[in-house]
Amino acid sequence: MASRGPVVPRITDVAALAGVSTSTASKALNDTGQLREETRERVRRAAEQLGFTPDSRGRALSSGRSYTVGLITTDSSGRFSIPIMLGAEDALSAGEMALVLCDTRDDALRESHYLKSLVARRVDGIIVTGRRTEPRAPIDVPMPVVYAFSPSSDPAGTSVVMDDHGGAASAVRHLLSLGRRRIAHVTGPATHRSAVVRAAATVAAAGDALIGEPLHGEWSERWGRHAVDVLLRTGEVDAISCGSDQIARGVCDRLRELGRAVPDDVAVTGFDNWSVMALASRPPLTTVDLRLEELGRRTAQLLLEMIGGAAPSGLVSMPMELVPRESTLGT
Amino acid sequence: MASRGPVVPRITDVAALAGVSTSTASKALNDTGQLREETRERVRRAAEQLGFTPDSRGRALSSGRSYTVGLITTDSSGRFSIPIMLGAEDALSAGEMALVLCDTRDDALRESHYLKSLVARRVDGIIVTGRRTEPRAPIDVPMPVVYAFSPSSDPAGTSVVMDDHGGAASAVRHLLSLGRRRIAHVTGPATHRSAVVRAAATVAAAGDALIGEPLHGEWSERWGRHAVDVLLRTGEVDAISCGSDQIARGVCDRLRELGRAVPDDVAVTGFDNWSVMALASRPPLTTVDLRLEELGRRTAQLLLEMIGGAAPSGLVSMPMELVPRESTLGT
Repeated sequence: MASRGPVVPRITDVAALAGVSTSTASKALNDTGQLREETRERVRRAAEQLGFTPDSRGRALSSGRSYTVGLITTDSSGRFSIPIMLGAEDALSAGEMALVLCDTRDDALRESHYLKSLVARRVDGIIVTGRRTEPRAPIDVPMPVVYAFSPSSDPAGTSVVMDDHGGAASAVRHLLSLGRRRIAHVTGPATHRSAVVRAAATVAAAGDALIGEPLHGEWSERWGRHAVDVLLRTGEVDAISCGSDQIARGVCDRLRELGRAVPDDVAVTGFDNWSVMALASRPPLTTVDLRLEELGRRTAQLLLEMIGGAAPSGLVSMPMELVPRESTLGT
Repeated sequence: MASRGPVVPRITDVAALAGVSTSTASKALNDTGQLREETRERVRRAAEQLGFTPDSRGRALSSGRSYTVGLITTDSSGRFSIPIMLGAEDALSAGEMALVLCDTRDDALRESHYLKSLVARRVDGIIVTGRRTEPRAPIDVPMPVVYAFSPSSDPAGTSVVMDDHGGAASAVRHLLSLGRRRIAHVTGPATHRSAVVRAAATVAAAGDALIGEPLHGEWSERWGRHAVDVLLRTGEVDAISCGSDQIARGVCDRLRELGRAVPDDVAVTGFDNWSVMALASRPPLTTVDLRLEELGRRTAQLLLEMIGGAAPSGLVSMPMELVPRESTLGT
């Protein structure tokens, strides 16, 4: 065992150094029982000298809680679930709760294995998140669960989701407020719920100002560039609202190559506020911030409330935020 | 308590349903003791019916291990630490170990708070990672620690780092093998160790083929675009090796705008294999993959070995991998 390196000091080591019994040492450190102050102080000094930290697992076992929350994610690339996870971790650590990470890599067998392990560890609750906004099947575990980003298909569960509709509408209202009246919408696949919801909100908010039908394609810069060619073949526009920052960046690049000024000739809006896209775009993008970290924080707060005894909250929709930049405002 | 929702079934519930004592139920589920097979089977069915899962914390307490590892990261943006974390999580979950996430947000007070909490939880070991390749001060905890990406300044500790030197040299050798003999190097700030190491390796590998001194600037597309103007003002080059994919993407964009063909006139290499940059670049980038997930996996394996009693390994350098694409090979 010598090669194992440092050893965690135990309460028995503290007791031995202080020359007291283990139960006296325990009382001294927990400020319980009837002890002379001198004894208490001697035990405290011994604990400090050895670098002793009380074992929080004892508290956990006796309280029936583990002060641990599991986070199940299917999103190994992390684009959406990482900020949610960091927000949740921030809210949980403030409550002395640890977050255990479980990356299922979209594999149902891995998910089932992780759920068993989290139940065996007696986590106090579980957060489930994913990479798509489509509802997912609920998990069956004997502790509180909150779904983030990908809601549960069970409306009685607690799910915290983005308000895609409100976000898309805010981008259109921004373009209308700048006097744009020929607005096109370019977005992701019609098989993706987020693209469909954003497109429907755009159609509703733009009214007569919408030019043509929403154009669906990949979530890529390449599709954004191609969509500009499609749009300019069929007529003129003075604004293009896009379903993602990647698409919007491609749109800006192609407009510039064709000699159209952004925003003077055509204003462009993105979606995501993914800084590596939105800020590197020429010009930088007016876009809709998903506020994912805030979504993660709210998810953790609701889970903590449920662990404390609160009833499930159903579907909770979190607002997005329009972030205006040069692609609509100019310099 | 009714509003707390589902309740975790206990061994006493299983025993009551099966009509046996708690100790009999425990023996039946642990396959110990002398019991009739019929009794064992009745207890198993009761456990299944109630959805009972044995409490793994008992095993943890009696073995002196928590089967938990803490991960301390300073990198809240996650560019580098997220893939490391996912690789570590993958390797740990195979060994039934849980990973607890601690995001310090570069705050020393938060770090110290997290370390205390991890020690109190009796984690079996700790992984420390960061956003820079500069060495960092070691942490003082009574359990094994492995540093990933940001090595410990204590050479006796175990640190798993990237081989920046080898990666940069492989990009230059690739350019030389394609017949390029006028190679410029454009990279990040001279105050960043990774930029300095990559520049030194490029100078050493390129020899007479290097044109001018390495150019240091921001890690940005904007700097890449600007650097092309600087280079072409002072002479001609047939290749530009870049310290990041962002810089390389800016280099490609500016060369195209100036009517220089990539790679026919000028071959370009990136660094990172950050897919959102490397694949969206026009043309897609030949680049050096940092293999961060593999680095995370190796980190976890070394930590597991140390938890099992192995001695620290000192500095472990992980190879990178050249990924050739159109920016040097053409279409």
